[in-house]
Amino acid sequence: MLAKIPYSKTNDYTREQADERIKLVSSETNSNLHHISQYSFDPALVAGNIENFSGVAQVPMGLTGPLQVNGEYASGQFYIPMATTEGTLVASYNRGMKIASLAGGVTTTILDDAMNRGAAFIFKNAVYARDFGKWINDNFESLKTISEETTSIGKLKDINQYQVGKIKWIRFNFTTGDAAGQNMVNKAAHRACEWIHTQKPKGLEGFKFGTQLDSDKKHSLINALTVRGKKVCAEITLSKELMEQVLHTTPEKFFKFKSISTLGAYIGQAVSNGSHIANGLTALFIATGQDVANIAESSAGYYYGDILENGDLYFSITIPALIVGTYGGGTGLPTQRECLEIMDCYGAGKVNKFAEIAAAVALSGELSLASAIIADEFVASHDKYGRNRP
Amino acid sequence: MLAKIPYSKTNDYTREQADERIKLVSSETNSNLHHISQYSFDPALVAGNIENFSGVAQVPMGLTGPLQVNGEYASGQFYIPMATTEGTLVASYNRGMKIASLAGGVTTTILDDAMNRGAAFIFKNAVYARDFGKWINDNFESLKTISEETTSIGKLKDINQYQVGKIKWIRFNFTTGDAAGQNMVNKAAHRACEWIHTQKPKGLEGFKFGTQLDSDKKHSLINALTVRGKKVCAEITLSKELMEQVLHTTPEKFFKFKSISTLGAYIGQAVSNGSHIANGLTALFIATGQDVANIAESSAGYYYGDILENGDLYFSITIPALIVGTYGGGTGLPTQRECLEIMDCYGAGKVNKFAEIAAAVALSGELSLASAIIADEFVASHDKYGRNRP
Amino acid sequence: MLAKIPYSKTNDYTREQADERIKLVSSETNSNLHHISQYSFDPALVAGNIENFSGVAQVPMGLTGPLQVNGEYASGQFYIPMATTEGTLVASYNRGMKIASLAGGVTTTILDDAMNRGAAFIFKNAVYARDFGKWINDNFESLKTISEETTSIGKLKDINQYQVGKIKWIRFNFTTGDAAGQNMVNKAAHRACEWIHTQKPKGLEGFKFGTQLDSDKKHSLINALTVRGKKVCAEITLSKELMEQVLHTTPEKFFKFKSISTLGAYIGQAVSNGSHIANGLTALFIATGQDVANIAESSAGYYYGDILENGDLYFSITIPALIVGTYGGGTGLPTQRECLEIMDCYGAGKVNKFAEIAAAVALSGELSLASAIIADEFVASHDKYGRNRP
Amino acid sequence: MLAKIPYSKTNDYTREQADERIKLVSSETNSNLHHISQYSFDPALVAGNIENFSGVAQVPMGLTGPLQVNGEYASGQFYIPMATTEGTLVASYNRGMKIASLAGGVTTTILDDAMNRGAAFIFKNAVYARDFGKWINDNFESLKTISEETTSIGKLKDINQYQVGKIKWIRFNFTTGDAAGQNMVNKAAHRACEWIHTQKPKGLEGFKFGTQLDSDKKHSLINALTVRGKKVCAEITLSKELMEQVLHTTPEKFFKFKSISTLGAYIGQAVSNGSHIANGLTALFIATGQDVANIAESSAGYYYGDILENGDLYFSITIPALIVGTYGGGTGLPTQRECLEIMDCYGAGKVNKFAEIAAAVALSGELSLASAIIADEFVASHDKYGRNRP
Repeated sequence: MLAKIPYSKTNDYTREQADERIKLVSSETNSNLHHISQYSFDPALVAGNIENFSGVAQVPMGLTGPLQVNGEYASGQFYIPMATTEGTLVASYNRGMKIASLAGGVTTTILDDAMNRGAAFIFKNAVYARDFGKWINDNFESLKTISEETTSIGKLKDINQYQVGKIKWIRFNFTTGDAAGQNMVNKAAHRACEWIHTQKPKGLEGFKFGTQLDSDKKHSLINALTVRGKKVCAEITLSKELMEQVLHTTPEKFFKFKSISTLGAYIGQAVSNGSHIANGLTALFIATGQDVANIAESSAGYYYGDILENGDLYFSITIPALIVGTYGGGTGLPTQRECLEIMDCYGAGKVNKFAEIAAAVALSGELSLASAIIADEFVASHDKYGRNRP
Repeated sequence: MLAKIPYSKTNDYTREQADERIKLVSSETNSNLHHISQYSFDPALVAGNIENFSGVAQVPMGLTGPLQVNGEYASGQFYIPMATTEGTLVASYNRGMKIASLAGGVTTTILDDAMNRGAAFIFKNAVYARDFGKWINDNFESLKTISEETTSIGKLKDINQYQVGKIKWIRFNFTTGDAAGQNMVNKAAHRACEWIHTQKPKGLEGFKFGTQLDSDKKHSLINALTVRGKKVCAEITLSKELMEQVLHTTPEKFFKFKSISTLGAYIGQAVSNGSHIANGLTALFIATGQDVANIAESSAGYYYGDILENGDLYFSITIPALIVGTYGGGTGLPTQRECLEIMDCYGAGKVNKFAEIAAAVALSGELSLASAIIADEFVASHDKYGRNRP
Repeated sequence: MLAKIPYSKTNDYTREQADERIKLVSSETNSNLHHISQYSFDPALVAGNIENFSGVAQVPMGLTGPLQVNGEYASGQFYIPMATTEGTLVASYNRGMKIASLAGGVTTTILDDAMNRGAAFIFKNAVYARDFGKWINDNFESLKTISEETTSIGKLKDINQYQVGKIKWIRFNFTTGDAAGQNMVNKAAHRACEWIHTQKPKGLEGFKFGTQLDSDKKHSLINALTVRGKKVCAEITLSKELMEQVLHTTPEKFFKFKSISTLGAYIGQAVSNGSHIANGLTALFIATGQDVANIAESSAGYYYGDILENGDLYFSITIPALIVGTYGGGTGLPTQRECLEIMDCYGAGKVNKFAEIAAAVALSGELSLASAIIADEFVASHDKYGRNRP
Repeated sequence: MLAKIPYSKTNDYTREQADERIKLVSSETNSNLHHISQYSFDPALVAGNIENFSGVAQVPMGLTGPLQVNGEYASGQFYIPMATTEGTLVASYNRGMKIASLAGGVTTTILDDAMNRGAAFIFKNAVYARDFGKWINDNFESLKTISEETTSIGKLKDINQYQVGKIKWIRFNFTTGDAAGQNMVNKAAHRACEWIHTQKPKGLEGFKFGTQLDSDKKHSLINALTVRGKKVCAEITLSKELMEQVLHTTPEKFFKFKSISTLGAYIGQAVSNGSHIANGLTALFIATGQDVANIAESSAGYYYGDILENGDLYFSITIPALIVGTYGGGTGLPTQRECLEIMDCYGAGKVNKFAEIAAAVALSGELSLASAIIADEFVASHDKYGRNRP
């Protein structure tokens, strides 16, 4: 029987307490846990970010760029910090950023913005559930007032409805300022649900919070068709010459390759016809203190390309559920905050800027990998950089 | 114009080179990058894991458990290291592990195992493409020999085929020992594709590597219906008494709640009817040097539950694409290796054990969150632990 | 070389012209085409319904019922005409109707109503496409006026938007009175698109009509999450006693069976977790002159069931894209009109009534087949009725 | 209260009995049911095809073609009978057939062939369920022998497996000769399941027949990725000149249009990126006595196109679940058999020929509608032919 790990209590975020946990586990498992204990900050800082604090994972970080971004919020050149243990990833994205910058930079646009949480309201029958839909619309202003009492930042934007049988799913959509906002929205939506319950809409039997139509921590088609976090588009135009000289391919070859990839994604129902959005965003998320589990949602994205009349290639990536924050969560922790500051993206008023940069990073990686595959340089470059792989 | 970051070259994994990058970026962006530079290992260690190495992300780690696992490879009690910046996550999983252990532990089973890579072979017409399918079957042994020349570990298991029009997608499935194996399989599959090309099957016009039916770094239904990485099942039986006393709910309430959740996941086409598999696996992946971007795939999972004849609740989670390794990738880095060693999961012969533990962790989190939502303790517990949220 | 079939021209809907075609094909193919030529109406009646009119398919029809429907538009007992060539189908639905009536009848509710058509508007870049979304909202009243000029019946209800890259898909939703309305909506939406084009919204390069986000003649998740045609729910409550005595099963067994079926539908991404909605609706559609190809969309539907506190079973089917009409299309043809008249569903003001009856028919079939499978009487009953099968 | 309709009993397929039903319903509902009673055959013929036989639906039929098909089974010119009540449909398909024939005809290929039925086997735990998978493989020959005892035609081809938790879904795939084969496969699979049950595989608790992974009468991704019925491909090459002169478009415009349509189908998760496969197949199915409800499955299909090096357009449609028969079901009924005979497709040894013709018809309709939309002639042609629409 292994001993219990001393559990987090208020005000116990001290190096002593952390070391005690390390010592216990070390002794119980005969492990030498030297490196986990090496960190450069006061544990008091992580109260609110973790329980049972014991040390850190040191995740290698590469600085890349500069990347030229031409957005509405992010405009200029940016260095991009990427934390990963996967060889070639940084090299590949760095190459993509170089090419993107050569081509004049990545244009970025925020298309939509909302964080969602919902509940299933269960009625005596389908008529009550349907009429509740009208009740919701009629009471929108009250729901807005009530739910916003729980937050100084979140604003109720609109409410979606879906009905099956006697169940009406309600999905509340909030803007959440510079926070990713899942917790903020949890509280606000929960308050709204409780208030609805007290109002006794006709035929209501009860409600179940969550129940998946808000699709937290998992991709869903509802998220992709609407928005979760930011819906962001990154675009670039690549001249024929650049594609030939730098990417060793042509707009036509690229277009055909992606047309087959899109068909492949479609028939296999992949959540993205992009190549590897997950790679770059994960490395950026770890570096900047994002909720990395949201890669489950933010890794989905749609490529669309076109050959323009002058023969150049239009190339875009649209990410429907990019969940990011520049305030709250892990963004204020030491290395994470430094990474945000490199891009001048820490704190209030920066989340759209950061979302645009993230989308530009994703596009850079798509550009790099897709062209490497087309030019058949993909396996060779992995051989070069991923040297110690089995 | 920002200055270029000195690019990784062979043998430049030194603290000097890393600091030079930090200094440059610090100076160009007027940032104070103190913490990123704090790491406890020789940068030479991360050659092969990252390019442009500049420092580390320090991700807070919580030690949790012990968790009782009753698997075919993992049997006994385990402490679980989790690296995250999301308050409440560790507390929630820790609670789940406690309950799971109280209930006798989590039973784990590896159902299937393969890493995949494919290509689209394009023919003159659909007849050639169809007949190529037979050619592939007839040449399986040659394909096995050829592809396995690139690896001492990977073994070609079988080959899937899908045809649309004159395109035949081929998906090679390999076992990859204790490595997650994406790079291994890239090389082996690429070699097989090149060999096919030299054999000039009738009517072949060319092939495009990748093209999405292997669904790398993105969820797809093909992955979910077959396997990518390990397909693992975690199961537990919860007595009526335990559910009432500890989870403050009943088997019947739980069953109904999940039946509505499953319907919600189905109609919104969420990739999981589980609650938040992504949370626990992401924290475990960061701690143990996994390729965290694979959360895109590994976050999908299926809950199935049943009320047994004696009234107890059967509860299971099946994860069809759990992509993990205990050798290669980031597993050998300092903090990462220590975390694997805590569970005696570092190195050769350990990957199935680690996959089973990971599935047990996922189940613990499902247990904890679902029951908190049902007992309506969800928002309250986030308030308690996620204290500094906006 | 086969001879050309004389092509339909205005006013050629005569028996002579039809017989000439039959004679030609008969002679060219050495076939004896006696039965096709047997019809009981003046061919002039089918002008507007078919070109190259040559005769009829005689599809066997069974009269079933009575079925008790308790809807907002359909209230009372109805005989149901079903045209099919599949043995057992009529018997199975008839059994379901009997049981449903015994249980007090099927309660039906129309949840939503719209026929859709759309187009992809292509812009110079994503910003223009996004801002066009606002333009559409600002110009809703103009779009309504313009589009409704093409129809005396259709009313523009709302407009959905979806953006990927520089493409903005617009989906116009109309109510269409008693017609299924696809053609009506085609014209109205096309007029709206042309008008938009003349207004030169900033950055617009062109539009492509259709392009799949309206999902005509095919199931899509967009249709299922919104509505296409009528979204209708049919519900019934089955007492424990009835289930045991008549269906030879119990609420608990039924509930568990459907819980596994729903999981099966979810993991295989079937468009329905119902058993065979397509069967009953197809037979009803053929009998009543509906556009039978819409079975592609109308066959999708969601089962949701619950065990009530008193132990009875709540059972519902929600069909999100039931496309029906009681006016226009084939509804006025001789046998088709007679079938509608049997249910007092022919002509103006009847479409909601007919939609409710159709949903009640679908539920009857679900009830019958699911309980037959559970009681393991399924294969036996097919043996009994499908006598001449190989 | 409406009177009960006299129920079908053995040997009651007489005109007297049918008329009695008509009279009863006519009298109870005050309807004049003249036309339903007009049919040209002895009701004894429809025993096994319908219960409660009362008359017929007379569905207008248009003869179209000739269509040039260059298949492995269908080779030459064919007239195509289409039964529909939707104006423009026949004209549109006829135009497509003309163009297809002008272009040298449609090349057709049967890619795969199987009818499926399955069951969920439920075990004590996931280990038993997994090991049952091996048991199934080891007992394949016995399962083949046992299941084939129920049919002189069906042959067990292979067995798919899918596991979630302690449930193992088994999907039996049979070839079914010239019958569509759903009933044949029901019986054979049911026998196999019962036999498995008697063999008491370790840990088996029971099985549920059906449960959706065979996806009968509904589209599913499992069907689309594997096969249900015939998987058929139809291909054509259209010269630049033909496209310009006859279709009033160009290969480039067509290619781009379909690339946007495919993206639209992908993001909305439509089951087809084709335009309206359902239309032509439904009309053909009604005419030829197919099980029309299978349009639920057969309406799904994948377009893939390419611009060839000489600038011509390659155009293909792949239908993964074309469910057809030329023997059994409704194929032997009077008008239905005549329609099959027009194409020399009635009876034994003809099913592959018919499947190829059906796919060629589907391609003709795609060609016609897509080019009409691109050339913007779509709404105009509906105006012309669908004259009596509201």
